[in-house]
Amino acid sequence: MIRYHFGYDQPDRARAGKRLRPQLLLRTALAEGGAVDCALDAAVAIEILHNYSLVHDDIEDGDELRHGRTTIWKKFGVPHGINAGDALCAISYLTLLHEEAVVPPNRVVEMLHVLHEANLRMCEGQGLDIGFETRPDVAMSQYLEMIAGKTGALFAASCQLGALAGGAALERAAAYAALGRAYGLAFQIRDDVLGTWGATDVTGKPSGADILRRKWSFPIVWALGTGPSRDRDVIVRAYAPGATAPDVPLVIAALERLGARNAADAAHDRALDDADTIARASNLDERRTIRDFLAEGARRVA
Amino acid sequence: MIRYHFGYDQPDRARAGKRLRPQLLLRTALAEGGAVDCALDAAVAIEILHNYSLVHDDIEDGDELRHGRTTIWKKFGVPHGINAGDALCAISYLTLLHEEAVVPPNRVVEMLHVLHEANLRMCEGQGLDIGFETRPDVAMSQYLEMIAGKTGALFAASCQLGALAGGAALERAAAYAALGRAYGLAFQIRDDVLGTWGATDVTGKPSGADILRRKWSFPIVWALGTGPSRDRDVIVRAYAPGATAPDVPLVIAALERLGARNAADAAHDRALDDADTIARASNLDERRTIRDFLAEGARRVA
Repeated sequence: MIRYHFGYDQPDRARAGKRLRPQLLLRTALAEGGAVDCALDAAVAIEILHNYSLVHDDIEDGDELRHGRTTIWKKFGVPHGINAGDALCAISYLTLLHEEAVVPPNRVVEMLHVLHEANLRMCEGQGLDIGFETRPDVAMSQYLEMIAGKTGALFAASCQLGALAGGAALERAAAYAALGRAYGLAFQIRDDVLGTWGATDVTGKPSGADILRRKWSFPIVWALGTGPSRDRDVIVRAYAPGATAPDVPLVIAALERLGARNAADAAHDRALDDADTIARASNLDERRTIRDFLAEGARRVA
Repeated sequence: MIRYHFGYDQPDRARAGKRLRPQLLLRTALAEGGAVDCALDAAVAIEILHNYSLVHDDIEDGDELRHGRTTIWKKFGVPHGINAGDALCAISYLTLLHEEAVVPPNRVVEMLHVLHEANLRMCEGQGLDIGFETRPDVAMSQYLEMIAGKTGALFAASCQLGALAGGAALERAAAYAALGRAYGLAFQIRDDVLGTWGATDVTGKPSGADILRRKWSFPIVWALGTGPSRDRDVIVRAYAPGATAPDVPLVIAALERLGARNAADAAHDRALDDADTIARASNLDERRTIRDFLAEGARRVA
């Protein structure tokens, strides 16, 4: 099942995914003067941990497709889906323990601490997200707390683990975590914009997919935070629990008239500015490499 | 949700469970000359890991009650159930990392390795068990492989972690793992006997609960391994996929005539004899303390 999930059962049709997190990790390790060998197991570990969360999220969200293939739970049943995700989680940690061969034990313990904490933060974010499903609205502060867990925690851990594997001091690695968190926020907002306005041939999902699923994305949450208006009412009605399937073009038009797309783009840019500030304050010189890579990744998606 | 699972929302009605695994761990640590303080975090970690597996197993098996209370997934929904289990898993590892305060980092890394491997073995056992559900029969070797993962792995880890926390050398700790595995086998066979013949007021489940659920228990698997007979046919029909609910008294009578109860008791005693042999070979002196404790635990259940 795990081979199936990664597409290894059909190597010619295998899809690698973007692998943003391990790339972030390796680039940070290199930026801190580490060798790739010192960070490779950690990079694999973070990608596997990400995939454990995807396998469980797909069950929790009822998603039947990922990367154009039937999800594990849909193909093999929910029990196997939960269990395969659990196994991926264990394999992720076991992979990180391989670092023992090239990194001192106290450093491995620090790295495990980072990975376990990130996992717990992810669960907290996912718990909030599940709770949001039955609500009529979600405040911006709650949305930000949710994505800080669901997305930010693993981006932060990617940079922090890379720094630790690369030999950075604890404090410097913590600065990289803050950098990763800012990147994660930027990435998630960009992802939300693509989930609303991205073309099908690019995202692999129907345009407005997030709206059809009534996902609490940045544009929606932002629009609900604006004052009373007919456009806001359109969104309130579309996201009302128990309402019929939303009229996607109508909601997108309302979002645009309210200025939600510009607001999302501005929030994305502010998150990158925050990353700038963090990097400058801690003198994280190789930041641009990582940022350029992220922008490149976003272009490939967009 | 986690507070609810442990019964901490109603302290006067809280049920501690048997806590066999942490007790095994602490007793092994003491037997190896360690102080309780050196093993307490590991003991908490193993109990939490056990509970993560219970929360997910309840979803996978569709169980709606545990210790007389509605299970997490039944009360809060499957998505929250999966996620709460994931959080428990992360919390278990984070708890073990607390050992860092009293145990050297390289030893903590060894202990984490044991806990992660045990988790992976549990998933393998659970994967087998899920696969068994749709089968017309299960061979004894497959049953043994399944419970070695589902039950044996965590019993083995309990003893091994206790030995490591208590200061035992790696090889000696591995001998304790073998001891724990033998105890796990004995415990599971006893548990299967109780699931078939245990009285309701003792087990909290209806008599023959395992048969009603068509669980592949030791007595059933053993009985299917006997030669052709009318009693064996009764069991084959009761466990046929898609058959109507089994006639429990009929199946129990067939098991008894075939000698399945005696066979289970004998296998239980052989597992304890194996434990004896292991303990003697490696000179694990405090074994009796652990064994007596296990017998006492079994009596409390029986």
